[in-house]
Amino acid sequence: QSSLTLQGTVDVGLAYSKGSLTSRTGLLSGGNATSKLIFRGVEDLGGGMYAMFWLESGFNADDGTGQPSNTNNQPTGATPAIGAMTFNRRSIVGLGGAWGEIHLGRDWSPSYETFISKYDPFALAVGLGINYSGGINPNQIRASNAITYLTPKFFGGFGANVQHWFGENVSGTPTSRNGTGSGVRLTYDNGPISAAASFLQTSYATGDAIYRNIAGSYDFDVARVSFNVNNDRQGQLKQSGWLVGLTVPVGVTLLKASYSTIKTEQTGEDPVGKKLALGAVYNLSKRTALYATVATIRNSGGAKYATVGVTTAPNKSSSGIDLGMRHNF
Amino acid sequence: QSSLTLQGTVDVGLAYSKGSLTSRTGLLSGGNATSKLIFRGVEDLGGGMYAMFWLESGFNADDGTGQPSNTNNQPTGATPAIGAMTFNRRSIVGLGGAWGEIHLGRDWSPSYETFISKYDPFALAVGLGINYSGGINPNQIRASNAITYLTPKFFGGFGANVQHWFGENVSGTPTSRNGTGSGVRLTYDNGPISAAASFLQTSYATGDAIYRNIAGSYDFDVARVSFNVNNDRQGQLKQSGWLVGLTVPVGVTLLKASYSTIKTEQTGEDPVGKKLALGAVYNLSKRTALYATVATIRNSGGAKYATVGVTTAPNKSSSGIDLGMRHNF
Amino acid sequence: QSSLTLQGTVDVGLAYSKGSLTSRTGLLSGGNATSKLIFRGVEDLGGGMYAMFWLESGFNADDGTGQPSNTNNQPTGATPAIGAMTFNRRSIVGLGGAWGEIHLGRDWSPSYETFISKYDPFALAVGLGINYSGGINPNQIRASNAITYLTPKFFGGFGANVQHWFGENVSGTPTSRNGTGSGVRLTYDNGPISAAASFLQTSYATGDAIYRNIAGSYDFDVARVSFNVNNDRQGQLKQSGWLVGLTVPVGVTLLKASYSTIKTEQTGEDPVGKKLALGAVYNLSKRTALYATVATIRNSGGAKYATVGVTTAPNKSSSGIDLGMRHNF
Repeated sequence: QSSLTLQGTVDVGLAYSKGSLTSRTGLLSGGNATSKLIFRGVEDLGGGMYAMFWLESGFNADDGTGQPSNTNNQPTGATPAIGAMTFNRRSIVGLGGAWGEIHLGRDWSPSYETFISKYDPFALAVGLGINYSGGINPNQIRASNAITYLTPKFFGGFGANVQHWFGENVSGTPTSRNGTGSGVRLTYDNGPISAAASFLQTSYATGDAIYRNIAGSYDFDVARVSFNVNNDRQGQLKQSGWLVGLTVPVGVTLLKASYSTIKTEQTGEDPVGKKLALGAVYNLSKRTALYATVATIRNSGGAKYATVGVTTAPNKSSSGIDLGMRHNF
Repeated sequence: QSSLTLQGTVDVGLAYSKGSLTSRTGLLSGGNATSKLIFRGVEDLGGGMYAMFWLESGFNADDGTGQPSNTNNQPTGATPAIGAMTFNRRSIVGLGGAWGEIHLGRDWSPSYETFISKYDPFALAVGLGINYSGGINPNQIRASNAITYLTPKFFGGFGANVQHWFGENVSGTPTSRNGTGSGVRLTYDNGPISAAASFLQTSYATGDAIYRNIAGSYDFDVARVSFNVNNDRQGQLKQSGWLVGLTVPVGVTLLKASYSTIKTEQTGEDPVGKKLALGAVYNLSKRTALYATVATIRNSGGAKYATVGVTTAPNKSSSGIDLGMRHNF
Repeated sequence: QSSLTLQGTVDVGLAYSKGSLTSRTGLLSGGNATSKLIFRGVEDLGGGMYAMFWLESGFNADDGTGQPSNTNNQPTGATPAIGAMTFNRRSIVGLGGAWGEIHLGRDWSPSYETFISKYDPFALAVGLGINYSGGINPNQIRASNAITYLTPKFFGGFGANVQHWFGENVSGTPTSRNGTGSGVRLTYDNGPISAAASFLQTSYATGDAIYRNIAGSYDFDVARVSFNVNNDRQGQLKQSGWLVGLTVPVGVTLLKASYSTIKTEQTGEDPVGKKLALGAVYNLSKRTALYATVATIRNSGGAKYATVGVTTAPNKSSSGIDLGMRHNF
């Protein structure tokens, strides 16, 4: 059962965004699912063991440019955003068996699923629908230089994911441990129920960046409801947010709604953004869909969150619409 | 009939170029056809409908470096030429059927065929033989953020291609519409006859860039003759040019000749470049060929066009030779 | 027998390095074999002839970033190290037959095999085990803009490889020939015996860079012993080094040891680095292995060679350990 797979997604939509200060019309990549190219494979080693690798390169399908990565989980390691292709989304080699799976390399962090991919109806998208729920810890989605362990399912539905990543700074300086961190995720999946919690901590000389999250969903067949609650902090910098989501399948169409919030806690008034996103995904096949997303953001407390590519004044709204096509190959 | 295709071209030649000021010997990528790597696929959606994608990355096969793209069809969106791979040549997702084909993403512009790929015997090459026929509009070959529609053949041979692309600048500035434009191509293909006309207009605050072109060819079996006429302008900047081409198949060899001109209209004398290119392509198989190209350029009116990599003084000639191998996979 | 192959290596290890000044723990890509993605193919042209191409992109699997190339075999042609993917490791098109094989493009130089890949037990790795044996000539491993010829085996085991590469500078300046060079390798492979010698010379206005090397190995079945001797010079800059290697297969495990030296000849004391590397590779399959490498470096004469990512004071030691997994796909 060894295999080598070449796959990916090309997703482009026509998007209009409007803030109080500027508006913009153009194409947007990844409105339903991030555009990406994946090389991956599994080798059967016998005895229930397998080796695997996964190389995944994100790109902007509207203009053909690639996306940067980060070499050390710190701002200093950010590769420049100059349109070059990298394996920014995943670059791992691993070993699996009845005991679970271990990966080495740049990988999804334990909070990837709970933060964005599994409980948000607009999951996996980089478009208008993406939720607002805090992002202080730079490793909430991915970490480079990571060792990852995933348990198999145990006790009829439980699973765990632990990860340690290295900032790879040399010893003997105050910032030696910057960018080094760990994370853990616990999940319970059983029939219609899914629940998860994750915790991440990355060391910084200026104060550890901490991320906590819980999330869950229940699938009623006629509809799936989901939520997540996020809490982000580094020293005095504190953000928190939550999301509730709803998806309703109607024939080959999937209707989606989410309401998400983000609050930055500070002295004086707290800036707050609230976003409502509504979407419809019309599946032409298992691999191909047409979609429409509308989203509107309300700001208060001096916040000025805006939809992609535009700006809005403090406490002013912003909204947008995205009509596109997503194809998985 | 769904398919996933990995294909491309590797083309490298030994080239010698000479101008009046400098000469150079080295390898040249793409002397017969641009070196490129393509991931593309088609999915049958039933009822005559299909989904498709096409990701194409150009590269310099002589040194292994990639090529830049452009994110907004303006000079500000040019990604740096630092050797990185991008999907600079094409990055689209699309839907097709009896009604034609629609694409979203970075695509060939309507003038791609009429300007370079179909009526120039040295089409698709970036080498010595490439024609000189004006290039003021930056979208004569490709456009990012484009919506493209191609009709099916109608009335026994006619076809049309319309495209709109976005500069994606925000509203409210004098340059809001910079880089936004549209193009159209009409073609007629019937047996030995092929004819086409294209028109492009890209908005700029400094004056719209306009490109007009007509082209045609007739295949006599023993030889194919072709021409194109190009007219480029932006405000006071005006260029025009034309090309006549001839290809003669002799057994497995294809002999090629083209004569092309470019004139820049300005106050005072108009700089003019005239280029004669002769080539032979010896096909070792359907996929693999050896080729030789010689080209010479005459300058007048102060022009100083030169073959690749060298410089020549005003009104001085330049010439070159390229011996290479092209392999399609 | 035409074929198109997508293959590669993903290799990541957990590495600890220590010098007298700094130490570092992190992940390391390519500790057993360089992480890479390869697109290659062969087309049967009939009559014993074939066309071939080989595109190979190196990457850092620990963080998903790519690696730079060089466009002109000179420092000025180095593409920036910004994490972008290129075909830095190989980018060739070629033709082969009973008369040998010719390549055009960026290719392994004649000393690739003798310098690193064939006689060093830690060959092909970029990790701790990599040998120290001089590196003044920038083309000891690869050259861009190269024409390469490889003979078939002759006289029962002899082979030759000649290559010429271009710096591609224009004529008429003192540095016109910078980066242009040639190399040759002679090999003898017969049963357990392998021997090779290579010579490289690259022109520079500041003095030609010259590399000379001899290498050999004998396979006793229970063990293979190997050596290489290297001599590098450019004007007053002179380096020399040698390596002895041992590999011992024990069941599915391969034990490896190498001892290598590098000396820089200069006025006053000569800096000397000596490195001992020991390794074990446990093969889980033909494609997948777990490995461990330990290495220690002794410096004298003011040398300060150190294991990857750390620094050591002059004449101080450095050492490291790397535990990883290598998977070929």
